[in-house]
Amino acid sequence: MERMLHEAVDAGRRVLDKGSVATYIPELAKADPNALAVAFCGVDGARASSGDTGTRITIQSISKVASLGLALSLLGEDLVFSRVGVEPSADPFNSIMRLEMRAPHRPQNPLINSGAILILSLLPFSDSSERLEAVLEIIRKMTGNPGLRVNESVAVSERDTSDRNRSLGYFLRSMGTMEGNVENILDSYFRQCAIECTVEDLAVMGATLAAGGSNPLTGEKVLPEKATVIIRALMTTCGLYDGSGDFAVRVGFPAKSGVGGGITGSIPGRAGLAVVGPALDPKGNSIGGVRVLEHLSGSMSLRVL
Amino acid sequence: MERMLHEAVDAGRRVLDKGSVATYIPELAKADPNALAVAFCGVDGARASSGDTGTRITIQSISKVASLGLALSLLGEDLVFSRVGVEPSADPFNSIMRLEMRAPHRPQNPLINSGAILILSLLPFSDSSERLEAVLEIIRKMTGNPGLRVNESVAVSERDTSDRNRSLGYFLRSMGTMEGNVENILDSYFRQCAIECTVEDLAVMGATLAAGGSNPLTGEKVLPEKATVIIRALMTTCGLYDGSGDFAVRVGFPAKSGVGGGITGSIPGRAGLAVVGPALDPKGNSIGGVRVLEHLSGSMSLRVL
Amino acid sequence: MERMLHEAVDAGRRVLDKGSVATYIPELAKADPNALAVAFCGVDGARASSGDTGTRITIQSISKVASLGLALSLLGEDLVFSRVGVEPSADPFNSIMRLEMRAPHRPQNPLINSGAILILSLLPFSDSSERLEAVLEIIRKMTGNPGLRVNESVAVSERDTSDRNRSLGYFLRSMGTMEGNVENILDSYFRQCAIECTVEDLAVMGATLAAGGSNPLTGEKVLPEKATVIIRALMTTCGLYDGSGDFAVRVGFPAKSGVGGGITGSIPGRAGLAVVGPALDPKGNSIGGVRVLEHLSGSMSLRVL
Amino acid sequence: MERMLHEAVDAGRRVLDKGSVATYIPELAKADPNALAVAFCGVDGARASSGDTGTRITIQSISKVASLGLALSLLGEDLVFSRVGVEPSADPFNSIMRLEMRAPHRPQNPLINSGAILILSLLPFSDSSERLEAVLEIIRKMTGNPGLRVNESVAVSERDTSDRNRSLGYFLRSMGTMEGNVENILDSYFRQCAIECTVEDLAVMGATLAAGGSNPLTGEKVLPEKATVIIRALMTTCGLYDGSGDFAVRVGFPAKSGVGGGITGSIPGRAGLAVVGPALDPKGNSIGGVRVLEHLSGSMSLRVL
Repeated sequence: MERMLHEAVDAGRRVLDKGSVATYIPELAKADPNALAVAFCGVDGARASSGDTGTRITIQSISKVASLGLALSLLGEDLVFSRVGVEPSADPFNSIMRLEMRAPHRPQNPLINSGAILILSLLPFSDSSERLEAVLEIIRKMTGNPGLRVNESVAVSERDTSDRNRSLGYFLRSMGTMEGNVENILDSYFRQCAIECTVEDLAVMGATLAAGGSNPLTGEKVLPEKATVIIRALMTTCGLYDGSGDFAVRVGFPAKSGVGGGITGSIPGRAGLAVVGPALDPKGNSIGGVRVLEHLSGSMSLRVL
Repeated sequence: MERMLHEAVDAGRRVLDKGSVATYIPELAKADPNALAVAFCGVDGARASSGDTGTRITIQSISKVASLGLALSLLGEDLVFSRVGVEPSADPFNSIMRLEMRAPHRPQNPLINSGAILILSLLPFSDSSERLEAVLEIIRKMTGNPGLRVNESVAVSERDTSDRNRSLGYFLRSMGTMEGNVENILDSYFRQCAIECTVEDLAVMGATLAAGGSNPLTGEKVLPEKATVIIRALMTTCGLYDGSGDFAVRVGFPAKSGVGGGITGSIPGRAGLAVVGPALDPKGNSIGGVRVLEHLSGSMSLRVL
Repeated sequence: MERMLHEAVDAGRRVLDKGSVATYIPELAKADPNALAVAFCGVDGARASSGDTGTRITIQSISKVASLGLALSLLGEDLVFSRVGVEPSADPFNSIMRLEMRAPHRPQNPLINSGAILILSLLPFSDSSERLEAVLEIIRKMTGNPGLRVNESVAVSERDTSDRNRSLGYFLRSMGTMEGNVENILDSYFRQCAIECTVEDLAVMGATLAAGGSNPLTGEKVLPEKATVIIRALMTTCGLYDGSGDFAVRVGFPAKSGVGGGITGSIPGRAGLAVVGPALDPKGNSIGGVRVLEHLSGSMSLRVL
Repeated sequence: MERMLHEAVDAGRRVLDKGSVATYIPELAKADPNALAVAFCGVDGARASSGDTGTRITIQSISKVASLGLALSLLGEDLVFSRVGVEPSADPFNSIMRLEMRAPHRPQNPLINSGAILILSLLPFSDSSERLEAVLEIIRKMTGNPGLRVNESVAVSERDTSDRNRSLGYFLRSMGTMEGNVENILDSYFRQCAIECTVEDLAVMGATLAAGGSNPLTGEKVLPEKATVIIRALMTTCGLYDGSGDFAVRVGFPAKSGVGGGITGSIPGRAGLAVVGPALDPKGNSIGGVRVLEHLSGSMSLRVL
């Protein structure tokens, strides 16, 4: 397997020059566009990795699967999906126009920004730090890494520049779609996105989802199986924003990307497979990472679709 | 003329029960839906009025013509219209979706909410109170009423509930369309909208616009003539939100409405004609007020289109 | 007046090189981009003209005011405006998306393509030629030119290339907004647009609208006064497509443009003023023609807004 | 397995009263809303079925996977996906507005109506009957049923009423996105949708896709494996229109629905599983059929996501 991972990283490196790191959050612009790494974690706990595995990124949108999992655990799917849709959006991850254009005026799904902000608002916490702590705790359990922390300089950078997310939050509240204090909710959101992790953390996270909610390293039951089924389905149809369809064609298993350059794949009943590569394609997905996963989907026969 | 005004108010009263007062700002919901008044002010200073002329309302969106006039005076039309469009919007006054949907991602015109917020951001003031004071001062000059003041309880009510305007402000900044501190700009906006006035104030304001910028009561030159030409044109095509076309058909002269229930009409070279009536139609325009103006447009031959 | 017209044409010629002739209909692409002419017709029948007054163009969208007038005459405004709106559209003249996006799913106004096609479908004719003949007849009466004819090669060219209008027609029928045979209705539409005329025809047409429906040359009462009031209001807010707001600012009186390069202005109670200039701006309006009208609006004090 | 199929049909029957048959095509309105059937076909050729298996429906949108397969076979994926996207659309299957709203102005994917019409236009046939025959032939091979035929009365019914598809076709041509004779292409489209089949035909079709393109009954290689991979991915993200996300959550394997009431599921490497039930949910998918597949996805452990 090591060899296959190694070959895949090589293939991925060849497309890195076509991507570029996210610049809309100043701290993200400092990432190394040449970094690329992959990690595997079987549902039996077997592990392997290749490439620049020491690279630390912020989790960004991959955290959305954790906060969704938390919401499903605490509130149940009926309540959650009475407030947010389950359909792909066809629009960029930070789009607002469909919220106004179409009734019901709610986010298309929990994996675009508006949906993830709404999910946070549903969690039973009024204090921003408690809310963040609950999300952080579930990510620590999914990754099996109790040392995960928020990169506060990235969090501050997000807070200072993320006018679009503020616009989404206030819009949702203006429509009566969301309740609560917008700045308080966004504070959790910006910090959740700034959780720092490695490719190996992300692989274990994918394996926990693949194993029906039990972390294969710690054995801990982190999420209900039904929640993981829902999350994997949403990762398949919506996990790479408006590039999800292309990813389904080229790679063919559930995955979630973040603009920090991470992608967490989850092959049901089999393994988590993650990549880190901060150079992004125009839709905000790791350009080298997608190539790595495409390569391994073929060489390791991981396609499920 | 007194008789014509009186008859028009009578005609307007007959449709009041089909409207309702604005409720999205709690303080506005306290307005009297049965109040209705009209006032005339010729460019020669001749005045007349009828109905509940003592009714005090907040100026709301009618203030947009003053802040636009101020921006045109201070910055010139080239700069202003490099940042905001001059076309009708076809969408409700607080709509956001076109800002994302169509390039250039700027407000369609200065009389919808996004455009008016942008206009405030262009004014050469970094302090919210200074900015507000400058707008208030020009409105005082246009109305000839130095006693005009902000109704602070309405301003607070607007600030507390106007999530949509916050969403617009942050969206404009996220697109790079607007610069500056959003909350600071909105603070001026909410207070500008909460300036308290009477129907007679609004009539003089319309007369100042009709007279090319000179207040017929005070004789003061408040705005450049070119600015008033631009403002009257925008009032004609965009002054009653997405009800502007209907107003042009039924009434046929430049006018600007506000959700406080006021409408300021401006018949070029002839007079200002204003109404106050807090009961609104579904598009946010005074239902009785439009009827009054329609009636007078006929009886006084005021149609210019 | 001759001199003012002459100077205005000179001013217009200076911007011709920034425009280009319509190319989406092959026959229109043959027009002379350097042609420019203006004609005046007072409501008292006084006439004057300047420039390339012999230029023959097809009337294109200017015909929409005639078919709307016919519909208002035959059916009344209540019926007509129960089927089509009166508001500006903010979208290009051939746009379809708002018809799907917003209820009620009907054209925003009768002067965009979808609205004009719908108006034709309302007329009480099942035969395409009879329908065309009725529209042609009213245009003959409005222009006082019984010799007006359809340019059949342009009509064929429109029919062969106008997929967008077909799309609009079938869309309207699919929504239940329009009834009747689409091809039959479009046949009238394409031929109506291909009526050939000169700048002087258009000036008389504008004068008929300015005079409340009586042709100042023939004395014939062609349209009810109320219909002309409605038409002039719609010309003001929607007459130059998504350039109507800019035209209101720069010129300031009711007008309707066509992609053949004509614009018919109508100064209420005073005169018709028309231009012909096939070089168009990006929104489909005669670039030289708008400049001519802007010049004359100033020099002849024709602004009504 | 018979028992599991039987139980699933029972579960499906309990929701039939919440659906209704398609009415926009008159012939479809004649379908029996109480009919419900399921059929299984393993990639090894094993078969089973339950319910009203004699019910004959028209294939409708399920035919889109066959025409897409044909296009991929004849033209290659590079050419096909240079003309049509691979992303979910978020809009109803017959939506037009995104084609105008967003560049590139091409269909979001080949499984919505606009995309399927475009796919037909790409096929190397200028004659409508030849084009239809080629699609019909590949469906015969995928189903292993050489007796499949077009239900001509349904085809005529579609042709007479499908103004929306005409609108889409002409719009695509007006944008330069599609070439060819629209009516000629639509003629093939309407007839392709009217191919009559049973639930067992659809199950074999799904099995052929599941088996990488070889029909398990006839052994014939009908489609390249790569084409089936692409098709299954698109079925997963876009197969049930704007209900695809919900289907992924509830059922979790690739499938394609049609408004005739059929759904063809394809479990990669394992089986085809199809349902027929003309009572539809509001998004146009068989309401009983989705319930049957949801039931079997659980009882037979067919979920792949």
